[in-house]
Amino acid sequence: MATTITSQTTFPSHSLSNSFHTHFAPSFKISLASKQKPYPRLRVSNALIEPDGGRLVNLVVEESQRNRKRREALSMPRIQLSKIDVEWVHVLSEGWASPLSGFMRETEFLQTLHFNSLRLHDGSVVNMSVPIVLAIDDEQKHLIGESRDVALFDSQGNPVAILKDVEIYKHPKEERVARTWGTTAPGLPYAEEAITHAGNWLIGGDLEVIEAIKYNDGLDRFRLSPAELREEFTRRNADAVFAFQLRNPVHNGHALLMTDTRKRLLEMGYKNPILLLHPLGGFTKADDVPLNWRMRQHEKVLEDGVLDPETTVVSIFPSPMHYAGPTEVQWHAKARINAGANFYIVGRDPAGMGHPTEKRDLYDADHGKKVLSMAPGLERLNILPFRVAAYDKTRGKMAFFDPSRPQDFLFISGTKMRTLARNKESPPDGFMCPGGWEVLVEYYDSLVPSSEGRTPEAVPV
Amino acid sequence: MATTITSQTTFPSHSLSNSFHTHFAPSFKISLASKQKPYPRLRVSNALIEPDGGRLVNLVVEESQRNRKRREALSMPRIQLSKIDVEWVHVLSEGWASPLSGFMRETEFLQTLHFNSLRLHDGSVVNMSVPIVLAIDDEQKHLIGESRDVALFDSQGNPVAILKDVEIYKHPKEERVARTWGTTAPGLPYAEEAITHAGNWLIGGDLEVIEAIKYNDGLDRFRLSPAELREEFTRRNADAVFAFQLRNPVHNGHALLMTDTRKRLLEMGYKNPILLLHPLGGFTKADDVPLNWRMRQHEKVLEDGVLDPETTVVSIFPSPMHYAGPTEVQWHAKARINAGANFYIVGRDPAGMGHPTEKRDLYDADHGKKVLSMAPGLERLNILPFRVAAYDKTRGKMAFFDPSRPQDFLFISGTKMRTLARNKESPPDGFMCPGGWEVLVEYYDSLVPSSEGRTPEAVPV
Repeated sequence: MATTITSQTTFPSHSLSNSFHTHFAPSFKISLASKQKPYPRLRVSNALIEPDGGRLVNLVVEESQRNRKRREALSMPRIQLSKIDVEWVHVLSEGWASPLSGFMRETEFLQTLHFNSLRLHDGSVVNMSVPIVLAIDDEQKHLIGESRDVALFDSQGNPVAILKDVEIYKHPKEERVARTWGTTAPGLPYAEEAITHAGNWLIGGDLEVIEAIKYNDGLDRFRLSPAELREEFTRRNADAVFAFQLRNPVHNGHALLMTDTRKRLLEMGYKNPILLLHPLGGFTKADDVPLNWRMRQHEKVLEDGVLDPETTVVSIFPSPMHYAGPTEVQWHAKARINAGANFYIVGRDPAGMGHPTEKRDLYDADHGKKVLSMAPGLERLNILPFRVAAYDKTRGKMAFFDPSRPQDFLFISGTKMRTLARNKESPPDGFMCPGGWEVLVEYYDSLVPSSEGRTPEAVPV
Repeated sequence: MATTITSQTTFPSHSLSNSFHTHFAPSFKISLASKQKPYPRLRVSNALIEPDGGRLVNLVVEESQRNRKRREALSMPRIQLSKIDVEWVHVLSEGWASPLSGFMRETEFLQTLHFNSLRLHDGSVVNMSVPIVLAIDDEQKHLIGESRDVALFDSQGNPVAILKDVEIYKHPKEERVARTWGTTAPGLPYAEEAITHAGNWLIGGDLEVIEAIKYNDGLDRFRLSPAELREEFTRRNADAVFAFQLRNPVHNGHALLMTDTRKRLLEMGYKNPILLLHPLGGFTKADDVPLNWRMRQHEKVLEDGVLDPETTVVSIFPSPMHYAGPTEVQWHAKARINAGANFYIVGRDPAGMGHPTEKRDLYDADHGKKVLSMAPGLERLNILPFRVAAYDKTRGKMAFFDPSRPQDFLFISGTKMRTLARNKESPPDGFMCPGGWEVLVEYYDSLVPSSEGRTPEAVPV
């Protein structure tokens, strides 16, 4: 089994150590095994927090139906999916957005834009803060005509899914951007990539995904579905699951926070809190550290014993990144409920970035956690605000900032870290485990020839 | 009594006829009488729909406290209110925004921006879609310093209210505009008037309003508070109240719709449905017909018997206008719940306008009613979608559009109506009652000298 996996590995410079497998996905065989049979449509673990809407959606068709669906798809009008579209099909197919059963129709889209939530037929409310929509252009709309169902193809011409009972409605791009990001300034990475040049129509419908989405990048085995994560948490007898969303390298400040959170949960009486260390794996902006490098860095952090593999599950969250701050952090939290997490760690300025055209952060650093704590449909989730960690010079390690002795603390900014890594200098001892730091140095090294004038940011989660 | 009122009248060209009083506010004496004593703080009518939060907020201090509060205000740091600020004080003071008890603090502001609703302490949710906030600049913030309470003064230097337990927080103007309007294009009337040049801080707190807000423009007697409207509906034994928000002249298409709505409600089994014809009285954009002209036009419509005074209450809604389409229509509906309405008529493109910089409407014409029908906190309100009325040439009157014979219908656009009124031509017989039309002609006539190049729009509600 392990051999099979290693053969898929496409990490940039060296193959993965055994400890990597051990640390990251100890239940890997179980998970893979579970992929051999289709998941039951209804999947609720009593021990874990209930998924939104009461059941975890699974939109992948049963294996026995696969060929029939593929043939059906070939006879339908076609939509070619972009890379980000495929990531959303992936997200939807595994139920991260439960109870959503496909790309949004207009009523769902409007509720998301205006209320960041969806009201279900029974009157209950689930959170849904970012539009999960599929854009088509005038020509595609014309080709679809009155067809009830359409087929979604990837860029290689393979049928990926069928979208049923479709509804085509206007794509109000400016309004979508304004209500999702709170700005319409040019330069929002997701908007530039997936909205500004996208079609003037949106098409919603119910998805039937022909086969589980795979990327064949050596990292698929870390892409555990919500159902697989729930199995893993159950297998480990977790009585609390705390999720940590990140899209950047882990430093010892993060590690301190995660360790401290576990301690606090134990003090609260939980017997076995499990950390879901959950790097985002979909679209990220050009100056973020790419997923494969981040995974190598996370590997080193676990190898170096900074986090305890026994109580940590590392997995990839397949969603693309919006960088939509308070709006997006709700999505990040909601998706983790569906994966079984009942605690969510939220930091300073989650999912934030610099304003694209002004010299300031796009969002108030505190709005994310405030909005998250009040968000409709997230009442069941326990929000754990991030405590600020900095380098304590007196102790030679990352520690929670003590406002009574600010002179003892060093805040290592993204710029500072980048400059150090670029110049192959070392950060203060204890800032990041040496193995993790080496990965970063290597990454920035690999950029030098082509990155004149670029300023990758690497510190914040 | 009637004499006192007439003396306050400041209608542009002639004083009001007696029938005006009779038609518009038959319960006028009762209403005025009720203003002599302070309202009780808790005010729930069992017969009518409950106000949001269970009780109608009244922020006007009791008469016995008035002088003491005025003296207190004189010793506090001062904020000078703009005209729109005073309109919001008015709105808040009478409980249109119940259960809001003052200008929003940050948690309320954020919930409004992101969720268009507020979660109350008991877990219930009320709708609240537009921010009701007070902006201050750096200097005012500095002057307020650590003061717990501040005084709000009008432009004449009179103390209007005290704001207690204040909270000062950042005014994220761009984000506020983007999330409220779904655009940040320059030229949004409310944003230009009240946001773009406003201070960089918002100040929230609990309001104590020293005296009921009056405008002394001859129309105050039509400004019935939610409590007074509830009294009036109760006095009339209303078993259903249907509200019609408007900011434009009433034509016979509107009248048909209102009459038809009453008929439908009677068919549904209601014995005495009362129409609340509720023109908006606060800030409107420069090319809308001003309130005093609209009230004269509405008067004529009732005089001419187009609407039945026995089953119609005409009153002024004191809110300023945002022109924020689907976001604002929720506010328009929510405020009417507080005034006792359990049915709300919603038209095409409610609270909409042209895009300020592009040649298109700012909002999809159907989004308003769709968003309204799904809005959190408005579940108790019955939404009545507007049927399209047009001039039926075969019958010589306004009628519901019949798609089977489109050639028989004439849609009279704002441009068409304006051109006719400007040129002192008549619209087709039956488009608007002659008295109402004369008021419009007179209004546009009064504009001619100073309005070269302006293009007032006058038709849509």
